[in-house]
Amino acid sequence: MKQHLVSMNDLSTEEIMDILKMAESFENGEQWSPSKKTFAANLFFEPSTRTKTSFEVAERKLGLDVIPFESGSSSLLKGESLYDTVKTLESIGIDVAVIRHEKDNYYDELINKVNLRIINGGDGCGQHPTQSLLDLYTIKQEFGAFEGLKVAIVGDLRHSRVAKSNRDALKSLGADVIFSGPSEWFIDSADAKCNFNLDEVVETVDVLMLLRIQHERHFSLTAISADQYHQKFGLTEEREKRMKNTSIIMHPAPVNRNVEIADSLVECERSRIFKQMENGVYIRMAVLKKLLEQ
Amino acid sequence: MKQHLVSMNDLSTEEIMDILKMAESFENGEQWSPSKKTFAANLFFEPSTRTKTSFEVAERKLGLDVIPFESGSSSLLKGESLYDTVKTLESIGIDVAVIRHEKDNYYDELINKVNLRIINGGDGCGQHPTQSLLDLYTIKQEFGAFEGLKVAIVGDLRHSRVAKSNRDALKSLGADVIFSGPSEWFIDSADAKCNFNLDEVVETVDVLMLLRIQHERHFSLTAISADQYHQKFGLTEEREKRMKNTSIIMHPAPVNRNVEIADSLVECERSRIFKQMENGVYIRMAVLKKLLEQ
Amino acid sequence: MKQHLVSMNDLSTEEIMDILKMAESFENGEQWSPSKKTFAANLFFEPSTRTKTSFEVAERKLGLDVIPFESGSSSLLKGESLYDTVKTLESIGIDVAVIRHEKDNYYDELINKVNLRIINGGDGCGQHPTQSLLDLYTIKQEFGAFEGLKVAIVGDLRHSRVAKSNRDALKSLGADVIFSGPSEWFIDSADAKCNFNLDEVVETVDVLMLLRIQHERHFSLTAISADQYHQKFGLTEEREKRMKNTSIIMHPAPVNRNVEIADSLVECERSRIFKQMENGVYIRMAVLKKLLEQ
Repeated sequence: MKQHLVSMNDLSTEEIMDILKMAESFENGEQWSPSKKTFAANLFFEPSTRTKTSFEVAERKLGLDVIPFESGSSSLLKGESLYDTVKTLESIGIDVAVIRHEKDNYYDELINKVNLRIINGGDGCGQHPTQSLLDLYTIKQEFGAFEGLKVAIVGDLRHSRVAKSNRDALKSLGADVIFSGPSEWFIDSADAKCNFNLDEVVETVDVLMLLRIQHERHFSLTAISADQYHQKFGLTEEREKRMKNTSIIMHPAPVNRNVEIADSLVECERSRIFKQMENGVYIRMAVLKKLLEQ
Repeated sequence: MKQHLVSMNDLSTEEIMDILKMAESFENGEQWSPSKKTFAANLFFEPSTRTKTSFEVAERKLGLDVIPFESGSSSLLKGESLYDTVKTLESIGIDVAVIRHEKDNYYDELINKVNLRIINGGDGCGQHPTQSLLDLYTIKQEFGAFEGLKVAIVGDLRHSRVAKSNRDALKSLGADVIFSGPSEWFIDSADAKCNFNLDEVVETVDVLMLLRIQHERHFSLTAISADQYHQKFGLTEEREKRMKNTSIIMHPAPVNRNVEIADSLVECERSRIFKQMENGVYIRMAVLKKLLEQ
Repeated sequence: MKQHLVSMNDLSTEEIMDILKMAESFENGEQWSPSKKTFAANLFFEPSTRTKTSFEVAERKLGLDVIPFESGSSSLLKGESLYDTVKTLESIGIDVAVIRHEKDNYYDELINKVNLRIINGGDGCGQHPTQSLLDLYTIKQEFGAFEGLKVAIVGDLRHSRVAKSNRDALKSLGADVIFSGPSEWFIDSADAKCNFNLDEVVETVDVLMLLRIQHERHFSLTAISADQYHQKFGLTEEREKRMKNTSIIMHPAPVNRNVEIADSLVECERSRIFKQMENGVYIRMAVLKKLLEQ
């Protein structure tokens, strides 16, 4: 495996399956700690509860020492670059840095220049590999395998950090992936070919993967309101009733209730939304182990 | 004991006495840790040094792993509700959440819906049960028992998170409780009957419990200035001299020096203000143990 | 040793050498932990990445429990004084507080009044003793001794927290110290006598200690621009080529690239800038051990 995990493209199919297997071991209670005292820092330059807390818990479960980093009171306020900040942390003894930053590909200025390990916790509208991995793990846990599964990804493909990498990973693992959403939010013309009306596919999909409308402002990019979005692309109670018995609902959260999904369905029986969060801890433990072992 | 501690009303007199006894054990050096790795998070949506730090120390003394949570960089900024935030933390593996929130009864949307334990670290003008418990512990430590003690609560009864619960708990434990303060700040008409001029009671009380003027803005609710307040309801050097040898001064802090109490008296011999802070750690260890043991 | 370390003046030459020796032991892998559970808090009222993180790592390497303190959400917002805040932390059980504060000599209101240990992490334009110590350690590590070394301190002497104490310490340890910089930024008239044109000394110095221009606003105190500063007082590529083979470059960081030093030289072979950061951890471990042992 590479020294850093910044994109799903860093991982071969074999490595993905290996991480999912390791996550399963952690879920089943396996214990692992690095052989020497190891320091982690979580550098989140954008708001986060889920991902940051998930990494914090994963790191502590592995016995790492977590050094607090608050972007709002760091020397970045004195004009220090991200490179100098990360190089500083490395000099002080940090072994692994988890970074979320609003700039696409922020990691380009770090790769091959720093010796600590970097895990990308989300870059701009780019990648969020541990989210992709926890999505894959949640699906594998449910269905055992990916071959022949029908997965619909619904919503804001363009601004999503996981839609594109989930599409690529799921396809290479043998799943059939289709899309639904406002065409302004498609990533590329290939998506358009796979575009389906939600009402046509809701009865046949195994996995309905709803994407978060990233920011209210994104509504301005399309002509529809939150309510219209819900009626056209959201999971309404009526649509949920038409889903197959065995099919599941996923969402990266935080959910905009009654936009992407009806309030009453967030914790319904087929929802895996909170299970995804639990799974995130196991996935991050697995990724940390993989990077620290080498 | 209940699953959560959000109000003094959650506790029977027996449970209160049990917690005080356990706090005494911790003060005397008792060690206790949960049998499995346990995660705590402290969600403070209002400024705090004392209560937050006190919980942080108590949690670590019990060997808990404390996961940082900063309201200013959480997904609440993305519009996530308190319920979704707490449910997220639960999914990620947090076992106990201490919450301070500006909204009265914020916990109503959590009780019976989440499985982790909640300790209320203060809600709006509502409750602050661990502060009440540490006040009771400080009194018991001093006098051995509550029966027959004369306790005067002085100041802003209405906006205080502890005045009402201290009044109720002290009465049920056998103490005689009286009040002094601007009548605009009484809680109910019952208080008015117990209203005394501070100069009339200062020589007879065993415990003088001064309340913090919560916010400067509260002065606008009454007609008097900070200086007038000090002269009428504050503990001046002159009044302190007239107190009984054995009587003590309490204040939840932070103190507004020369308003509720003369600057020179904050650390005088009969002041238990900093002892209250020390006791807070033992009380919080006791409460955490009680909730985590079940 | 004294109870606190707030200034280099707190230390005798013997104590300085003792700390440097202890830092060397820590760099060579020595382990030490206090015999009882020990709590540290880092109170940083000004932005910091380096110093705060360095203390956090040092504290954890010694097995201390570090209690988070965020000035932005503390009771200082309720008007609490620094004294009351520190006294509160002491009451709650904090054993050692590292404090950075924008006010010169903020510690005067704490010394002799609190029982916990205080380490000054920087006060206004005053002192920053652990930075001085790590500078001394870096020099000693390179040259073995201080006698006869020629050290040039270049830049903003007036606003630097280390220039004056480094000058005094280096002189008393036997080094020859000279200065270069805009005369508006000299500390006192004695400096003027030691003022040299950088081009005259660059070939003969053993240590070139560049100071950070503290804030862009300081440029307004002098008549020159950032670019002019670089040409006159900065380490350009041309000047670096004229330095002795064995001489080294130091800078407390964060560096203003292409102002105090050319971008390409920050990580050049003779630069000890990131080594200084690493050394800071060992120095802070040594200082913490010294204060906690007594």
